[in-house]
Amino acid sequence: MNEKEQARRPGGRSARVGAQVHQAVTELISERGYGNFTVGEVAARAGVADSSIYRRWGSLETLLSEVALTHLNAQSPMPDTGSLSGDLRTYAAQVAREITGPDGPAVLHLAVALSSSGQRGLQAGADIRAERTRQLQSMLDRARDRGERAPDAFDVLDHILAPMYIRVLFGMGLTPDYVDGLVDRML
Amino acid sequence: MNEKEQARRPGGRSARVGAQVHQAVTELISERGYGNFTVGEVAARAGVADSSIYRRWGSLETLLSEVALTHLNAQSPMPDTGSLSGDLRTYAAQVAREITGPDGPAVLHLAVALSSSGQRGLQAGADIRAERTRQLQSMLDRARDRGERAPDAFDVLDHILAPMYIRVLFGMGLTPDYVDGLVDRML
Repeated sequence: MNEKEQARRPGGRSARVGAQVHQAVTELISERGYGNFTVGEVAARAGVADSSIYRRWGSLETLLSEVALTHLNAQSPMPDTGSLSGDLRTYAAQVAREITGPDGPAVLHLAVALSSSGQRGLQAGADIRAERTRQLQSMLDRARDRGERAPDAFDVLDHILAPMYIRVLFGMGLTPDYVDGLVDRML
Repeated sequence: MNEKEQARRPGGRSARVGAQVHQAVTELISERGYGNFTVGEVAARAGVADSSIYRRWGSLETLLSEVALTHLNAQSPMPDTGSLSGDLRTYAAQVAREITGPDGPAVLHLAVALSSSGQRGLQAGADIRAERTRQLQSMLDRARDRGERAPDAFDVLDHILAPMYIRVLFGMGLTPDYVDGLVDRML
């Protein structure tokens, strides 16, 4: 895109800055882990001014939670296969791919670390989970509307997501059979 | 204990240094989170020389894993109530108390953080879990020896421990009814 096209599309520069900043955060989390870098370091790596970050996101926690949320949403739209078992299997496999992918463990550690970084972090973590739970709930509601007996979103958290999260957080890895087994056990 | 008693008990000073260093680590984890302090800061707070820490523990990761392991073991000896359901209920309640107690979330974050801090951290985390799994397995083996149908240690990890860990890591809290419900569902 040249300068003229950017001028015609006012979202262009803002979107580019957003993408650069997200990329810088993802890299810094992978390299150093959560909590070991500053807004200044994100800004330097993204090639923007510190003040641009503070103006747009307000705080490092808010920026971090936006990055985590974007990853989770972009990588796992909720499936709609027509059956609860199809939806849950597809969903579990998506989450497994996402949390074992190149940025997955970093994003998962971030979600966990946010919850231990004071009130603002707790709120950011809660926002991520609320959005995720809302998406999951609509998938389960669709199953109920079709007359299927569906678990609630907390059952899915406790018995499908939590085991996968803990195994990845503990560096234990996930196999497709293991992930399918969690879904079968729940159904 | 006076100087003379210490001189008669060669373990005295070593045990005292160990306790001071453990206390310093626990405080620093609670105050700053994992990864945000150095061996030098632990030494300063414990009132010992950096070199004493390196000589005894070799690295910060090894020290951190020893602290985590001591907490987990000291606070949760495995129950032996005579029945699997009694053992699992008591065990789950102990773990819940431990991870929601004053140092619990810090120790849990530490266990998670260790796994993302390179090879030495991964090994330290694996050692903590191996010790824990061994204890759990003997509890389940006792149930099998009595003729009870017992789950395996990984089922307990996936469906009792993982949901509790994730809820505490996400700042969601645990109620006794919730914890009992996890055990009942498994049995």
